[in-house]
Amino acid sequence: MSTRLPFTKGHGTGNDFVLLPDPDDQITVTAQAVQAVCDRRFGIGGDGLIRVVPQDGRWFMDYHNADGSIGEMCGNGARVFAAYLRQHGLIDASEFEIGTRGGVRQVAFDDHLVHIDMGAPRHDGGQVTVRVGERRWPAQAVFMPNPHAVVFVDDLDLNLEVAPQVASEIFPAGQNVEFVVVASPGEHARMRVHERGVGETLSCGTGICAVADQVWAAAGVVGPARVRVDVPGGTCWVQRTPSGSLVLIGPAVLVADGELSHELTEMFA
Amino acid sequence: MSTRLPFTKGHGTGNDFVLLPDPDDQITVTAQAVQAVCDRRFGIGGDGLIRVVPQDGRWFMDYHNADGSIGEMCGNGARVFAAYLRQHGLIDASEFEIGTRGGVRQVAFDDHLVHIDMGAPRHDGGQVTVRVGERRWPAQAVFMPNPHAVVFVDDLDLNLEVAPQVASEIFPAGQNVEFVVVASPGEHARMRVHERGVGETLSCGTGICAVADQVWAAAGVVGPARVRVDVPGGTCWVQRTPSGSLVLIGPAVLVADGELSHELTEMFA
Repeated sequence: MSTRLPFTKGHGTGNDFVLLPDPDDQITVTAQAVQAVCDRRFGIGGDGLIRVVPQDGRWFMDYHNADGSIGEMCGNGARVFAAYLRQHGLIDASEFEIGTRGGVRQVAFDDHLVHIDMGAPRHDGGQVTVRVGERRWPAQAVFMPNPHAVVFVDDLDLNLEVAPQVASEIFPAGQNVEFVVVASPGEHARMRVHERGVGETLSCGTGICAVADQVWAAAGVVGPARVRVDVPGGTCWVQRTPSGSLVLIGPAVLVADGELSHELTEMFA
Repeated sequence: MSTRLPFTKGHGTGNDFVLLPDPDDQITVTAQAVQAVCDRRFGIGGDGLIRVVPQDGRWFMDYHNADGSIGEMCGNGARVFAAYLRQHGLIDASEFEIGTRGGVRQVAFDDHLVHIDMGAPRHDGGQVTVRVGERRWPAQAVFMPNPHAVVFVDDLDLNLEVAPQVASEIFPAGQNVEFVVVASPGEHARMRVHERGVGETLSCGTGICAVADQVWAAAGVVGPARVRVDVPGGTCWVQRTPSGSLVLIGPAVLVADGELSHELTEMFA
């Protein structure tokens, strides 16, 4: 590739991504290339890389985790992806569909906030136990569809440098753990999240949805509802539709546009 | 500022920087703006920001640490700065001078390696003691002119997550600590570095020079000499000139060029 690849960097509540437009579907994304671009010191830096490519009449979010593995769906990344489509003139409408590995998702813009339909939660796992150091709590398993253990705690002053222990056979491949303090029952919560294979992060879109689900359950809220969820990287909201689907609502910020060096560009040839 | 500010991101052995060209000396750099740009998730990300501005007939390296504090001199940053000047056509020569807060420095290019004259070390402090956990070593104080404690160890398998303790009144404002294993006496060493106020880093230009000085001293090497120093982020070399000045030699890689968002640009108005 003789011309340098354009990129955009953006974040959603502190979850950050490098977007690579690929309108002609000609970029080859290897794990090595993703790792090089997402490296925070030797590359651009990001939690993941999103190739922006047309597919079946929609824009498809070809999401890759920073370690090069394939990511199925990422709520914060989807907001940044949607904001990119609008700001770069690829889409004019304020409501549209995007393609993701988790299926087609509905997107809507409301001023600067991006709404993403994340689907309905599943609870087939039931209760589990979460342990941090000497402390233990009962927790609820929630699938969005990725696995979460949601724990209500009295305060968020916890040491999450070591992964929380989850005693359960429900999560054979691990799970994220969300620690939640209710600020206002059914309406407002604060959370921290420990993501499997990553550690504590500033935000997790599916985790926010799982927390919303449990905050409503704890308050006996059924049917359509809206809850505010504060994460370390900012604030999101979740809205439950009449059909039971959870809509993640939050900011998406694009911080820079540019071109990769020739050396980085060559990795995608 | 209505037009978006251009930037370049680059690194020298894993020490990374955001460069902002300012040919008309019109950008105002505040601590808040530096923090915003250098934030690795909400901004571009970098160990520091370098404004590229003309001064006294040379290009001046206006260096700021990621926390917004003023940096006097940074060897890895100087290489990236010099590479930027050449790649962006601001300088054609392969040998030239740059301005830094540590004074005017001589730069030379040798294929892809950048040479920076870092000045002569001072040893007015003498011996100190460095402690990591239960282990203690004698160490040499070296000023480049920033303060370093250089420790020879048997292996680099050390826990540097906690800052090494240095018992000495020589360093009232703290110091960097370099741990060194000699691979070949006087010719090749491997090191790790713990930087004051930062923690362990992938590389430290002045630390590499301090280590070179002590590797030669330990081997009884006097006068002009050259040593290879491997850091976690790559490899550098140090050459001692007949006058006793230390020339840091190493790679500099520019990974991307781009434009900051309007929001980030506004912070420099």
